Amino acid sequence: MKQALLELRARLREINDVESAAAVLEWDQSTYMPAGGAEARARHISTLGRVAHDMRRSSALGELIDRLRGHGESLPPGNPDGALIRVARREHERATRVPSELVAAIKGHVAECFVTWTRARANDDFKTMRPLLEKTLELTRRYSACFTEHDHPADPLIDLYDRGMTTESVRALFAELRKELVPLASAIAERPLPDDSMLRGDFSRDDEMELGREMAGRLGYDFARGRLDLTHHPFMTRFSRGDVRITTRPSKDKLGEAFFATVHESGHALYEQGVDPELDGLPLGGGVSAGVHESQSRLWENLVGRGRPFWQHMYPELQRRFPALLGGCSLDDFYHAINRVERSLVRVDADEITYNLHVMVRFDLETQMLEGTLSIADLPDAWNDRYEQDLGVRPPDDRVGVLQDVHWYVEKIGGLFQGYTLGNVMSAQFFAAANRARPDIPDRIAEGDFKPLRDWLTENIYRHGGVYDPLDLVTRATGSPLRIEPYMEYLRSKFGELYRI
Amino acid sequence: MKQALLELRARLREINDVESAAAVLEWDQSTYMPAGGAEARARHISTLGRVAHDMRRSSALGELIDRLRGHGESLPPGNPDGALIRVARREHERATRVPSELVAAIKGHVAECFVTWTRARANDDFKTMRPLLEKTLELTRRYSACFTEHDHPADPLIDLYDRGMTTESVRALFAELRKELVPLASAIAERPLPDDSMLRGDFSRDDEMELGREMAGRLGYDFARGRLDLTHHPFMTRFSRGDVRITTRPSKDKLGEAFFATVHESGHALYEQGVDPELDGLPLGGGVSAGVHESQSRLWENLVGRGRPFWQHMYPELQRRFPALLGGCSLDDFYHAINRVERSLVRVDADEITYNLHVMVRFDLETQMLEGTLSIADLPDAWNDRYEQDLGVRPPDDRVGVLQDVHWYVEKIGGLFQGYTLGNVMSAQFFAAANRARPDIPDRIAEGDFKPLRDWLTENIYRHGGVYDPLDLVTRATGSPLRIEPYMEYLRSKFGELYRI
Repeated sequence: MKQALLELRARLREINDVESAAAVLEWDQSTYMPAGGAEARARHISTLGRVAHDMRRSSALGELIDRLRGHGESLPPGNPDGALIRVARREHERATRVPSELVAAIKGHVAECFVTWTRARANDDFKTMRPLLEKTLELTRRYSACFTEHDHPADPLIDLYDRGMTTESVRALFAELRKELVPLASAIAERPLPDDSMLRGDFSRDDEMELGREMAGRLGYDFARGRLDLTHHPFMTRFSRGDVRITTRPSKDKLGEAFFATVHESGHALYEQGVDPELDGLPLGGGVSAGVHESQSRLWENLVGRGRPFWQHMYPELQRRFPALLGGCSLDDFYHAINRVERSLVRVDADEITYNLHVMVRFDLETQMLEGTLSIADLPDAWNDRYEQDLGVRPPDDRVGVLQDVHWYVEKIGGLFQGYTLGNVMSAQFFAAANRARPDIPDRIAEGDFKPLRDWLTENIYRHGGVYDPLDLVTRATGSPLRIEPYMEYLRSKFGELYRI
Repeated sequence: MKQALLELRARLREINDVESAAAVLEWDQSTYMPAGGAEARARHISTLGRVAHDMRRSSALGELIDRLRGHGESLPPGNPDGALIRVARREHERATRVPSELVAAIKGHVAECFVTWTRARANDDFKTMRPLLEKTLELTRRYSACFTEHDHPADPLIDLYDRGMTTESVRALFAELRKELVPLASAIAERPLPDDSMLRGDFSRDDEMELGREMAGRLGYDFARGRLDLTHHPFMTRFSRGDVRITTRPSKDKLGEAFFATVHESGHALYEQGVDPELDGLPLGGGVSAGVHESQSRLWENLVGRGRPFWQHMYPELQRRFPALLGGCSLDDFYHAINRVERSLVRVDADEITYNLHVMVRFDLETQMLEGTLSIADLPDAWNDRYEQDLGVRPPDDRVGVLQDVHWYVEKIGGLFQGYTLGNVMSAQFFAAANRARPDIPDRIAEGDFKPLRDWLTENIYRHGGVYDPLDLVTRATGSPLRIEPYMEYLRSKFGELYRI
């Protein structure tokens, strides 16, 4: 058994090596690659993907997993060997279910789709995307049909990113959340908009970048095991526990954008850098799900980074660094400005409250597409109608409408959006649990000390990597199953005070 | 046959994809990777190497090549399909000859060796390296023994990097060269050393880097298909024809070091960027051998970049950029300074003439080691004796002696050094042929116009990639087989004038 386990680890580590290599190629593609490298690079990445897929579906690996299955199931929950065998089996089965031909077809198609989308978005040209998106939908449905045991065609996709959730459970959670969020957003919309003009004006972009870099270090991001670079669409990526990189976008016309992007990605990175070294290079060696991952980026960005204690400490420093903009602005006015709630068209610029409404629009539409109740031809109108209904604004064109997010144009349709809102909900549940366990956390944050919070997160979330399934991890860390109450309490308390509701 | 050729190309392209991915990982390792990433990165690269090796030795590929062999041999020389089948067969056979177990043993051993060497060199500690180097020698001899048809154990290694050359032919060429170089170096040693103090002093390192970057562009290096970064030991690397990167070392205390390093690597890159796009992603899609490659870096660095016409144009600009150092220095004195010949201990800092003597020491010693006539225990003394005899200087310690070059400590012993001097010899033969075909080349260089030279090199060397074997390429491009006369004429004319000999 010991020998078989060693062999399993060796095989899984090899798959991880190939996938980590692909991640390096993708990082380079988004940071330093010259334009001329694009075509060949897509091929390199795709070949590595195929190699990893073949390794994962190999029958030798399958037999090894079969031999170990009984042993794995005999181990107590939380045992890393048991988790490893379980996750390896899941990934092997998933790989064997989907024919290589379909994997290759999807890969080839979405690569073309992405290139066309970058032009189509710039030109507000949904018409060109329509047949491509119809093909994506068809391929996605074929992919989904490989997993016959699910109730809904979106389920296998959700399972891929947020293990344990289903279309039904996401819908139920979103319905509950919606019932609370819509009235809250309406109440806020009736209050005057806080002024945020002090964030715009003449400030040094380099200074903001530098502050973001320093802040990442103060939060606990280890630069000896990572680095920060510039890109268009910020992301975090992990090649190993010793090399977890973050990217941020250059500052634009608004102070805070680059800063908060850096803090957000630092949150993702703290999670990856905090996984138990014993799990490195194995499928358990990274964050466990899209939702839990996003909970960490949002926790650090919003619950910490847009919180009052954080700025009690940081604001004087920010004023010193940006005297022209902030010299005459009170902490209170600044705090209002960075927490301005506004019904808007673009998800990535949205505030903490309306953000979830953007996510729900996408989740509902993709679910309908997968069911076959919404055609691609009707998608732009359906999008605009939902925005008018849910957010009170109607996109003037598809650039800020159905073409705005890359997700449907570079992947299968479905599975990716629910994680953002799951992350928001989890972030508050984790933060509340941390504060219960260490009531000094807010005061320490107000002194610029993030260690008590980071320690709690490391102990209860980060170190476990993928050992527990995401919903089990939530229960284990917070003492209760995933629920919306801590999130709503957080929002009501923070924004109730801000908007005097 | 057409179908089989298509399949061959697809398979070879896939191997190239994996190897290109490994090259990206190595580039990142030498430029941006944080220290924490080192351990896992070594594993990622090694796994990709194993995957590529397995692809290359696959029996399906072997059968395909067998089916195509007759067709390939029926094609005229210079036909890309014929060349492709020939090179693919050679690489496949090489891969099948060497047991995977030996490949893995060498890989693992040299990785350990390299790490130990970096410390051993710093500490002048050959003793620690001795058992490791003995193991390297043993593994190299086992590798070499896989190729029984060769006359000398160094032959399979030379064949790997400089196809067509053997220990015997390199020895003959070096003996001939030595007979000319040693008296020339002695004659120069009797003349007064030119002053190069104007290259040392207070100058902006950033300005020198910037000039190197601009110069690369003026020589014809296409930044839309490449980039320049900093590293410790400059190198050029190719991921595809559209992504050929160069690196340079930061300027140190001597003006010119970073500049010439950049020009050197630009020479390598011009070659790679100039290969026929049809060959991209195939084993013919890069430079054909170590010698021909080095001929291009040396041609641009020395025959162009350290030549008088080049500085006729560039020197006033250099003076403007570095007025404190060069404001009062004549072109003539500057030209002498950058061509100062001096018997020294360190190969990479050596001048154009003595450089080859450094190479010959290494080539002879490694050949003796492979023959079994020189033991590792006796290597440091043998090294020092040869330096005293050939260069008139004796290393005071092993740091500037036998431990100075990385080559024996990060690869098998043998095969790598002869290429440097072959490159020097070829560089002059190519340059002379270019000047015969386009007699205006020196005048155009003196106007800062490198196009005529670059065009000739592209037409006669670059575009062919690996279609012709290296020695055929030399004959084809220059009208005569490889010979030392053009090189000796170049050196005698240039240094005869400089040193009034």
